[in-house]
Amino acid sequence: MSKTIAINAGSSSLKWQLYQMPAEDVIAKGIVERIGLKDSIFTIKYGDDQKFEQIIDIDDHEIAVKMLLDQLIDLKILGSYDEITGVGHRVVAGGEYFKDSTVIEGDVLEKIEELADLAPLHNPANAMGIKAFKKILPDIISVAVFDTAFHTTMPKHNFLYSIPTEYYEKFSARKYGAHGTSHQYVSQRAAQLLGRPIEELKIITCHLGNGASITAVDGGKSVDTSMGFTPLAGVTMGTRSGDIDPSLLPYLMKKLGLTDIQDMINILNKESGLLGLTGLSSDMRDLEANLDKPEVQTAYDVFTDRIRKYIGSYVTVMNGVDAIVFTAGIGENDAHVRSEVINNMSWFGCEIDPEKNTIRGQEVEISTADSKVKVLLIPTDEELVIARDVERLRK
Amino acid sequence: MSKTIAINAGSSSLKWQLYQMPAEDVIAKGIVERIGLKDSIFTIKYGDDQKFEQIIDIDDHEIAVKMLLDQLIDLKILGSYDEITGVGHRVVAGGEYFKDSTVIEGDVLEKIEELADLAPLHNPANAMGIKAFKKILPDIISVAVFDTAFHTTMPKHNFLYSIPTEYYEKFSARKYGAHGTSHQYVSQRAAQLLGRPIEELKIITCHLGNGASITAVDGGKSVDTSMGFTPLAGVTMGTRSGDIDPSLLPYLMKKLGLTDIQDMINILNKESGLLGLTGLSSDMRDLEANLDKPEVQTAYDVFTDRIRKYIGSYVTVMNGVDAIVFTAGIGENDAHVRSEVINNMSWFGCEIDPEKNTIRGQEVEISTADSKVKVLLIPTDEELVIARDVERLRK
Repeated sequence: MSKTIAINAGSSSLKWQLYQMPAEDVIAKGIVERIGLKDSIFTIKYGDDQKFEQIIDIDDHEIAVKMLLDQLIDLKILGSYDEITGVGHRVVAGGEYFKDSTVIEGDVLEKIEELADLAPLHNPANAMGIKAFKKILPDIISVAVFDTAFHTTMPKHNFLYSIPTEYYEKFSARKYGAHGTSHQYVSQRAAQLLGRPIEELKIITCHLGNGASITAVDGGKSVDTSMGFTPLAGVTMGTRSGDIDPSLLPYLMKKLGLTDIQDMINILNKESGLLGLTGLSSDMRDLEANLDKPEVQTAYDVFTDRIRKYIGSYVTVMNGVDAIVFTAGIGENDAHVRSEVINNMSWFGCEIDPEKNTIRGQEVEISTADSKVKVLLIPTDEELVIARDVERLRK
Repeated sequence: MSKTIAINAGSSSLKWQLYQMPAEDVIAKGIVERIGLKDSIFTIKYGDDQKFEQIIDIDDHEIAVKMLLDQLIDLKILGSYDEITGVGHRVVAGGEYFKDSTVIEGDVLEKIEELADLAPLHNPANAMGIKAFKKILPDIISVAVFDTAFHTTMPKHNFLYSIPTEYYEKFSARKYGAHGTSHQYVSQRAAQLLGRPIEELKIITCHLGNGASITAVDGGKSVDTSMGFTPLAGVTMGTRSGDIDPSLLPYLMKKLGLTDIQDMINILNKESGLLGLTGLSSDMRDLEANLDKPEVQTAYDVFTDRIRKYIGSYVTVMNGVDAIVFTAGIGENDAHVRSEVINNMSWFGCEIDPEKNTIRGQEVEISTADSKVKVLLIPTDEELVIARDVERLRK
């Protein structure tokens, strides 16, 4: 019996989930927000809907971790620090270096910090989380679980951009993808639910949350994915543009009077996507309540069109498809998006059962019995994958 | 009986083709190169393989036009200027304004010049050609044939980027596509060859030359196309990158020490694509002679992969496909590319007959008899469309 904690550290936040392993039961979970700012918010959820919340200034991640562990002891969720047998950290960019989850020892932390070039907002924050736990729990194994690792199996002709090849060789400019942990988890669950060995299956996984990406999983391996060098590329997202003609950048910068390209990239990351198209919201739930507004219906059509296009393109990448999986916030809960995507590609031999499609947030096959391509709804669980990887590497 | 001349004017060139209409016979064709530079090159091809060539300084397009017409008289191809009954000009960007070929009168030329924002290299050059002919042949009808007109039928959710909607409303930032004349021509020919009304057909046209684009033609109308705001976007091309993650721009600019984004865009337009990936050539013929080099094979795989992906995505846009058409330099002549593209998407029910696929540069159905999706090779003829549109609008 052991307790494993899964960590997702942001620059001013620390999201966590504590597991009893190998039972995989969630004992407690929570988040520390506004670290380093006034009035940080410290929340723990545990037991049957019990909640502990405190507003207090928390200066850095190290203090947040100490406070978290002490509070878990106070709440009798933990007996002592020693009960934690492993810490797993989500790390966004592993580059080409990290092809699997990795025990953080030797130069691993240094490598993660070096890869900040590929995820300037995320990797330094992830590293802060790692260092904080290392300080407080120096003798406990910690494991880095990379968002990119699952995609390191992409063949070269899929990860290369059509730019001078020295930009790849010298500067590591290539497609890395993201959401790897999620795509891996739901593709493996899909194979289990279908009762077939994953090695035989061609699966397209649609992780549709505020960030969204589509992956082609052939025989259990990622062979292509819609996010690119960064998570900006691919399908339309809550606030991200996804794919655009790069020529738009200088054109819009001139029109907008911008001189720093980073300002333009920020617009594409934070003010575009569904929010930019509607001027209303980045949240699909808000938009679906306003589909009578023409611009909202258009944004909705853009969103589902881009998803279908990636699915169609990945059918060519694998020369076939056995199953399409929906996951993450929109994928798990939005029956309308799922039916709009699938029922407009009936030519591919996939069809949704409207009755089954009303189900939300649980594992279910939502295609009709006749559907040649199976369609599945599988809630993702990235924290569980992190906890499992800690257990696997602890042994 | 009338003689129509089809013109494609570049900033320092004037390409032309003279037709006997309505017979559609090419009487003569040629090009004036290096206009405004030392040693301009003036070429006319006519009759049975006859050729007239002269190296001489030609200062501007107006002089080029006068010299061309006088030489046609000297060579007894024309009796007098009066025999020209119409001039058709290729114009790259027609924006949303020009939905069809248009007689150049009133404010049409002014509009074309205003649209230079959308094609800064091409529209001003096209306008120069128009003005030169207007000066020399002031009383003859001239018609602008737009590369974008065929794509003006795209639905809004396909032409909008997922960026703030005011960028479309205020700055016309949207997808326009290109090669429209070619996609239109080959899709119409495909319907004729298949002996079916185009209104009933879903056709994907692959214009693969040094520039390359893929179009979804549903019921005779363009509903989506791979080129974007400019011809930089879409599939891998000779020297153009096609789609990339826009985040690569600031990253590469920093690595390369570039401060002007236009320099980066120039690299993506002129030093990328097949040339950038191989460091060898932008010409597929050169590359196919070097497929034993791993980087060339990889570039080749990138090229065919991107084409297949667009085809797959356009099958979702139309929810089906009846025919796939190959045209332009590579599409018409490169059997290897055609079979690599099609035979790796057998799941879609398309298969090439290797025997028929050896044919080059003529209209032929190259799929097997069993192929559910028909595959056609159709040489494009943009000049003929221009001449036809002049005839149509002359009446």
